[in-house]
Amino acid sequence: MVSALNRIEALKHTAFKEGKVDGFLIFNSVDLIYFSGFSGANALLIPENGESTVYVYDVNYAHAKAQVGGFGVELVKRDENLMAKIAKKAEECGFKKLAVDALNVESWRALSKFLGGEKKLEVDNSSIRELRKVKDEKEIELMRRAGELSSEGMRVAYETVASGVREYEVAAEIEYAMRKQGSSGTAFETIVASGSRSAFPHGGCSDKKIREGDVVVVDVGATYKFYRSDMTRTLVAGKPSEKQKKLYQIVKRAQEKAFEAIKPNVKAKDVDAVARKIIADAGYGEYFVHNLGHGVGLEVHEPPTLSPDSKDTLAVGNVVTVEPGIYLVGYGGVRIEDTVLVQKNGAQKLTNGPYTLGEE
Amino acid sequence: MVSALNRIEALKHTAFKEGKVDGFLIFNSVDLIYFSGFSGANALLIPENGESTVYVYDVNYAHAKAQVGGFGVELVKRDENLMAKIAKKAEECGFKKLAVDALNVESWRALSKFLGGEKKLEVDNSSIRELRKVKDEKEIELMRRAGELSSEGMRVAYETVASGVREYEVAAEIEYAMRKQGSSGTAFETIVASGSRSAFPHGGCSDKKIREGDVVVVDVGATYKFYRSDMTRTLVAGKPSEKQKKLYQIVKRAQEKAFEAIKPNVKAKDVDAVARKIIADAGYGEYFVHNLGHGVGLEVHEPPTLSPDSKDTLAVGNVVTVEPGIYLVGYGGVRIEDTVLVQKNGAQKLTNGPYTLGEE
Repeated sequence: MVSALNRIEALKHTAFKEGKVDGFLIFNSVDLIYFSGFSGANALLIPENGESTVYVYDVNYAHAKAQVGGFGVELVKRDENLMAKIAKKAEECGFKKLAVDALNVESWRALSKFLGGEKKLEVDNSSIRELRKVKDEKEIELMRRAGELSSEGMRVAYETVASGVREYEVAAEIEYAMRKQGSSGTAFETIVASGSRSAFPHGGCSDKKIREGDVVVVDVGATYKFYRSDMTRTLVAGKPSEKQKKLYQIVKRAQEKAFEAIKPNVKAKDVDAVARKIIADAGYGEYFVHNLGHGVGLEVHEPPTLSPDSKDTLAVGNVVTVEPGIYLVGYGGVRIEDTVLVQKNGAQKLTNGPYTLGEE
Repeated sequence: MVSALNRIEALKHTAFKEGKVDGFLIFNSVDLIYFSGFSGANALLIPENGESTVYVYDVNYAHAKAQVGGFGVELVKRDENLMAKIAKKAEECGFKKLAVDALNVESWRALSKFLGGEKKLEVDNSSIRELRKVKDEKEIELMRRAGELSSEGMRVAYETVASGVREYEVAAEIEYAMRKQGSSGTAFETIVASGSRSAFPHGGCSDKKIREGDVVVVDVGATYKFYRSDMTRTLVAGKPSEKQKKLYQIVKRAQEKAFEAIKPNVKAKDVDAVARKIIADAGYGEYFVHNLGHGVGLEVHEPPTLSPDSKDTLAVGNVVTVEPGIYLVGYGGVRIEDTVLVQKNGAQKLTNGPYTLGEE
């Protein structure tokens, strides 16, 4: 049984192993969800020994008491300063040095001051990132469901994209379908970018009407119990042109080959290179203007990264997108994307949908 | 005509007036949208004299070139370090000191180093916050539309809430209605919290079925062209009990009186006090566990704040929520909330919907 408390133990194992710090302070909202399963906490203090403490304001206190198990829950009153309160606790516990996951420069200064100097504090932004890169069984179960919900949204996209329909109307149908089946919201702002707008990878949705022959990039993601998925298909409203078909086949082959290259112990940059070479060999190298993929989990963009300059090596339990694209400014773009899980023998798709431009 | 360039001029007027800094660096994603109207930028450098520069990565470069007017658009290549690139530009321009809106401690250290020391940099988190507190005509127009879209969502909530319907199904209908009319997404995660779950102010949505007699807190917000709205109503599935009616009337009166108290030059804490006193006098003071309200704009929570310890004074152009509530753990909660605009003669509601528990 995987639980939040196992994650705490895993963090202790990594972050405290060199003996430099004996407490870990978490402020990042996503890291807080990762460890506590609760979205209303403001901080979490993990001591090397003993119980961890979640800090919450009045508005979420009753909710935290009802929902957070295995932690102390500390109320931060209106007239209390969170940093001062944490520093006081740190003094009581006699920590020699605290690690923090993330802090803005002003909060860092405030906390350092209360602790009696910057020497009592260090930033450790890698320990949690490394943990979160490898999904446990519970996370994979939730991500499978998020993937299914995205796939359902994409099914509806194929039914809805047509000449005369506005981009945001397509998004409305996609999001409604995902929500009705239990998605707690989109994983990011849905993209339905048609015609020349599809050449902008992050084109969003406008009130533009889709026209006959338009290429339409649809990029959707569902969220299920905090976990996200990410999926893109490219469609044509009506009959695709020869040029559209040609671009599509290049991107499709790049996606297939990159997917096949994903295995544990493979360098992420080598997977990127597989897709990039196919697109470059076809003469479109300069039009693939982004990375091949990114990790997905509690955030829609998180490590590891599949890019030419990535330092990541893939491992069982990583969940990444594979999303090559070609973007011709003034003409349009093509992208195909799935969210995939790295397993012992290769990758498994968590999103599923047709690899077709639609009506052909 | 209000434009992004006027906002830049307004910032220069505030941030440079003491002569300590002669350049402003913006990193916060929402501040970047405020000044550039574009969501794909990574930084914006505003010099005291001359053209401002937006920094974007390859993936958004073509989009930025097409969309961002009145700024230079600088491409940050894959092998370039954004902080190093900015520091180089700062050296070329001969800035004596740069202000930044927000930075995490690591980026602060990196940028300081490239600039040649922390003395070349200071955090100014108030200049932009103050500007954003007062909405201009263009912003008010967008916020009116966001308010209308929330009101449409709430209309659908009243149609949908019923015994046997799941909380997330109500959210699906609300969000679909807003999206179909042009909302670009929810302003925050929709809350449909029924029965005892309604006692958690941030209760979210679950798959719980609403039961006959359940009180249901519905908190919805639409986003329109980046601007948000926020609105809550409390309903009962079926016939309300005497206790539900009594709690509702107290909260309703608190909301009405607080709304009437909103005027320019009134202290925000005094408005909070009006609502808090009504609830306290009725014997429920300790169950109103949050602030009366918060500013709304590009973010759903931004200054000014209506709270007992607020230092804000209201001004024409502020947009705030007015949202008293009573939360009885184990029983349920009641909250009524509108987003309102501070005008010369008082407040105007941007969200509109019935003040009723539903079937009565």
